[in-house]
Amino acid sequence: MSFIYKADPERGRIWAEVFARQAPALDFRIWPDVGDPAAVRFLAAWEPPADLAKLFPNLQLLFSSGAGVDQFDLAGLPAELPLVRMVEPGIISGMVEYITWAVLSLHRDMPRYQRQQRAAQWLPHPGLPAAKRRIGVLGLGSLGRAVLAPLLGLGFDCVGWSRSRHQIDGMTCHAGLAELPAFLAGTQILVCLLPLTQATQGFLNAQLFAGLPRGASLVHVGRGQQLVNADLLAALDSGQLAQALLDVTEPEPLPAGHPFWQHPKIVITPHIASMTQAETAAEAVLGNLRRFAQGLPVIGLVDRALGY
Amino acid sequence: MSFIYKADPERGRIWAEVFARQAPALDFRIWPDVGDPAAVRFLAAWEPPADLAKLFPNLQLLFSSGAGVDQFDLAGLPAELPLVRMVEPGIISGMVEYITWAVLSLHRDMPRYQRQQRAAQWLPHPGLPAAKRRIGVLGLGSLGRAVLAPLLGLGFDCVGWSRSRHQIDGMTCHAGLAELPAFLAGTQILVCLLPLTQATQGFLNAQLFAGLPRGASLVHVGRGQQLVNADLLAALDSGQLAQALLDVTEPEPLPAGHPFWQHPKIVITPHIASMTQAETAAEAVLGNLRRFAQGLPVIGLVDRALGY
Repeated sequence: MSFIYKADPERGRIWAEVFARQAPALDFRIWPDVGDPAAVRFLAAWEPPADLAKLFPNLQLLFSSGAGVDQFDLAGLPAELPLVRMVEPGIISGMVEYITWAVLSLHRDMPRYQRQQRAAQWLPHPGLPAAKRRIGVLGLGSLGRAVLAPLLGLGFDCVGWSRSRHQIDGMTCHAGLAELPAFLAGTQILVCLLPLTQATQGFLNAQLFAGLPRGASLVHVGRGQQLVNADLLAALDSGQLAQALLDVTEPEPLPAGHPFWQHPKIVITPHIASMTQAETAAEAVLGNLRRFAQGLPVIGLVDRALGY
Repeated sequence: MSFIYKADPERGRIWAEVFARQAPALDFRIWPDVGDPAAVRFLAAWEPPADLAKLFPNLQLLFSSGAGVDQFDLAGLPAELPLVRMVEPGIISGMVEYITWAVLSLHRDMPRYQRQQRAAQWLPHPGLPAAKRRIGVLGLGSLGRAVLAPLLGLGFDCVGWSRSRHQIDGMTCHAGLAELPAFLAGTQILVCLLPLTQATQGFLNAQLFAGLPRGASLVHVGRGQQLVNADLLAALDSGQLAQALLDVTEPEPLPAGHPFWQHPKIVITPHIASMTQAETAAEAVLGNLRRFAQGLPVIGLVDRALGY
């Protein structure tokens, strides 16, 4: 019985050590060294190989090596094969750090102070207490819920929105498209943590921006294809949006001449908000293998119809 | 019996409203409208008037309108007059926000990503989990303890140093100059929250920087006179320090031609880490007046010998 790892080989070596320590009976192999294809029961991949069903006829679980599965061609995968997203503390803590940093940057007007520094200008501006700053989080899955904890702890006025109904202490959670306008109407800093699906492609567009109060800001850590680039530029230029902080773009890497790079109201980071930590990722996968062996539901099972 | 307010008049109007609501019997006045000098029992000031004892012979308490009293000429004030620092939730929450932002900025290499953005360069760098990043906080008073809570919550490896012995769950607290080397030796991000006294003037100097591991960073939110500017520049140029984030400078405002402004390894904010919120400041002072009337110790009483 073997486990194949098909992603960044440097991280793969760390997975190999964790598997050797914690599951020595399992034959852990790094692609393309797959051994006997009929023995392959588990595959962790960023991009699965083509013809998966023919290649590994006895495959029981397919793990994504990242938080999303939008890089998988869902239609091309065997219909009954369970797909598992990566839910591991490294991804979560990285995202918590990034969102806390990004929200505080906007709340405390840091991009403005950095522009002032370049002009050698010492000029304090009055601020708002956190309780008077409303943060709206799009997406209330494991990441969304995790980033909300420190934001609530810092005293921000938080609201959430997701497709299905959630409940989180200390804040209002809106659900479904019908409640989107109410969510947007008071949001001063919008944080997008949505998964990329057909329903969220182009979700961050002119109509959505128009629903925010004038001068709101955007933190985007979902996927580049959720943002309509031209609509963002228009909203920043008209003043409808004051500032955008983008960790994901379409395309990635952002090409050198792209107007986002030098835009005075855009801060870019190169998709670093959250990176899987090899060690904790391998441990999370081993935890799911134990749950699977015991007949328990795995953590992060993808709903094929929803696409996440 | 009257209370005189001698600081920013715009904030004074907010104090006046809070006092009128919560202590209508007290005659609240904004400098220079002092009324009968013999009736003045309480003064809140950024800079007290000269000849305080002669001017207000019946003064019982002097409040600083800011977190520090280093702007007071302690030697020129009546020896028996109790001085009270401002300890109020607005100052504390502002500092918590700023330090959380500053530490996350350095932890996640944000100044480097911002330099890359100006060069249109999309280049992720590997990072460390928070548990492998040691944050050292100089100063464990009410501000130091408050900023440590979210840093510990984010999973950072925190250590503290102060003049006298403190105990905080989940971290080691060093005390006194004898333990300073041990505190510095492992600190990757040094946060200075010390009060300005004779003992802390020039505290952040070449010798102290040499005690940090090579490539450490500095967040300075104490007072400008604690930092030896030339020593900071030398440590940044030699690579002993990787980055400095300064909210306080000597002098303030930093003059236009100062080398800090355009230094690629220095981020400057114009003394905005924490600003007293007029409303919560007035409430904190009223709380202390009630304690004083009941014979309880006031919160934030200054030790004249220590200077804070």
